[in-house]
Amino acid sequence: MTLERINRLQLQLKPGQYFYVTNLVNIRYLTGFTGSNAALLVSDSEAILATDSRYEIQAATQVSELPALIGRNFPDLLLSKIKKSEVLVEGSNLSIAAFQKLVAAFDHQFSSSVGVIEALRVVKDESEIELIKRACEISATAFLDVIESVRIGQTEKFIRNVLEQRMREYGADDIAFASIVASGPNSAIPHHEPTDRELQAGDFLKIDFGAKVDGYHADCTRTAVVGKPAEWQAELHSAVTSAQGAGRKTIQSSIQFAEVEMAVNQSLRESGYLDYFTHGLGHGVGLEIHEDPFFGRGEAAKIASNTVLTIEPGAYLKEKGGARVEDTIVVNSEGYVNLTNLPYELLEL
Amino acid sequence: MTLERINRLQLQLKPGQYFYVTNLVNIRYLTGFTGSNAALLVSDSEAILATDSRYEIQAATQVSELPALIGRNFPDLLLSKIKKSEVLVEGSNLSIAAFQKLVAAFDHQFSSSVGVIEALRVVKDESEIELIKRACEISATAFLDVIESVRIGQTEKFIRNVLEQRMREYGADDIAFASIVASGPNSAIPHHEPTDRELQAGDFLKIDFGAKVDGYHADCTRTAVVGKPAEWQAELHSAVTSAQGAGRKTIQSSIQFAEVEMAVNQSLRESGYLDYFTHGLGHGVGLEIHEDPFFGRGEAAKIASNTVLTIEPGAYLKEKGGARVEDTIVVNSEGYVNLTNLPYELLEL
Repeated sequence: MTLERINRLQLQLKPGQYFYVTNLVNIRYLTGFTGSNAALLVSDSEAILATDSRYEIQAATQVSELPALIGRNFPDLLLSKIKKSEVLVEGSNLSIAAFQKLVAAFDHQFSSSVGVIEALRVVKDESEIELIKRACEISATAFLDVIESVRIGQTEKFIRNVLEQRMREYGADDIAFASIVASGPNSAIPHHEPTDRELQAGDFLKIDFGAKVDGYHADCTRTAVVGKPAEWQAELHSAVTSAQGAGRKTIQSSIQFAEVEMAVNQSLRESGYLDYFTHGLGHGVGLEIHEDPFFGRGEAAKIASNTVLTIEPGAYLKEKGGARVEDTIVVNSEGYVNLTNLPYELLEL
Repeated sequence: MTLERINRLQLQLKPGQYFYVTNLVNIRYLTGFTGSNAALLVSDSEAILATDSRYEIQAATQVSELPALIGRNFPDLLLSKIKKSEVLVEGSNLSIAAFQKLVAAFDHQFSSSVGVIEALRVVKDESEIELIKRACEISATAFLDVIESVRIGQTEKFIRNVLEQRMREYGADDIAFASIVASGPNSAIPHHEPTDRELQAGDFLKIDFGAKVDGYHADCTRTAVVGKPAEWQAELHSAVTSAQGAGRKTIQSSIQFAEVEMAVNQSLRESGYLDYFTHGLGHGVGLEIHEDPFFGRGEAAKIASNTVLTIEPGAYLKEKGGARVEDTIVVNSEGYVNLTNLPYELLEL
């Protein structure tokens, strides 16, 4: 499987061309190596990994199919012994300073290339979907546990801690990202960091979270209410849920990203909440929590089969409260498979 | 305090020069803003933050002293309305692709600058030291708890989960980095990822971990043994501990990094373990887990007062086992304050 991915990259190289890979997520995708320091050189017929001595054993275990060079100076290890060549570097990853060093140190012709491996990562294979599915299942199970145990007086941080602990207990290797637990007026902040605010009767409780399994992320959001919802809460939540459903129902391979957005926006326009939806509709999920493809680029791009995406509209009333509903889904030719198995109704705690 | 840091950066700018800051850790350091998407423009007399709508409220709260522009295109928000100027960008942070976009879009004269704000961050102020100290205290308390509860048959992942849970319970906002819990032969892997391997009698148990408090990191390592140590384990551990102590005792402001390394290496040479110490001696700790200054650069650089550093020699016998001892310390003119309050003897579990 590992070599298959490198082969797909090699198909994009011209004869004699090299790809010098520095983005660690892309290195993991191509080789399976999970260390925190590495570079990878791919030619049209070969691939060599470089990492430092801390990871010598790990490289031999995780990347047994490829030779690994050990040291600290990766350009020197990988680029000094090849003949003068065209070397593509990752333009979105390599810093200007690192690029300038390469140009100064070697005679090669370096070119910046953007999004090549990221594009390979968009369409997931079965093993990747299985891991994201597992991460979503752990997330949902942990969330339902937490919802049972939430009480007035608990702080956002406390609820966050319990949620993240449950995800680990259910088998997450880690959390996918810093969980958002936002109560009361804080729920109006789309990306709120949990505080010591204590949960009160009548609060919205918005939780955006996910588990990570073997490098793959889950991303889901649900919004609950403490006690019976006020009329404005029920109305806002229902508007967001309807919009999310309207978008989700349009999903299938070959539809344009813009069509999904139009369906969501149309629904929010009708309910009067479009002005309160202030962020992007969603993004790809995989080895990164946010990865290609993204909604909101205004392109005519179409969604490919086996793309894993979030759909996450929200509406936020400043200093009052807000709600978001988010699923992680896999696109297919008939529609999609929803990996987030959580109810849509406004949960009353 | 926030503005004081921006003032220190402004002192380094020529009149009419701008600094376009894109490294989020540096933005946090300068402004206190903790969102995941922002840019900051600093002139010799002003500073303006740009972030997206998800963080509008957060920016107003965390960075009330500075104007904040809201949108997605930060270069456009910050750089389109100033007159043609020299604009420094962060060469270690800005990607080639982002740099090329800037050069294409604006008439300014862009120059790559490396390590300017990182250098400001080396010497910590009182509030920063207080946070790192708190993170170290939480780490030590959690570690001692875990050491009490470790049993034969527990997996590395299980021990990791308990440790990280305890750190959170004791007040960590997060963990500082993915904890290393390495048992038996795995302890020979300097940066081992916890597995399902079950703890056995006679195992080394090496734990490298830390808590995070308000953005600031702790970093400590201790190695224990399950039951009575074999002779080779006692000898190896004692060699590493002596070397760590030898290095630590040389520490004071104005000493060269190389002198500390020489003391450690001399000790390991005498005990015969120098060849088994395969990584750097340590690094700065602060808003990043690894930050300037680093040991091992072979420069004549001296250690400044109020630098926070790790000292972490280890020795690793392939497929057999290894040990590391690591403290986080604050340098001062008389010596150092050790923020890691953990015993040095080989703990028998």
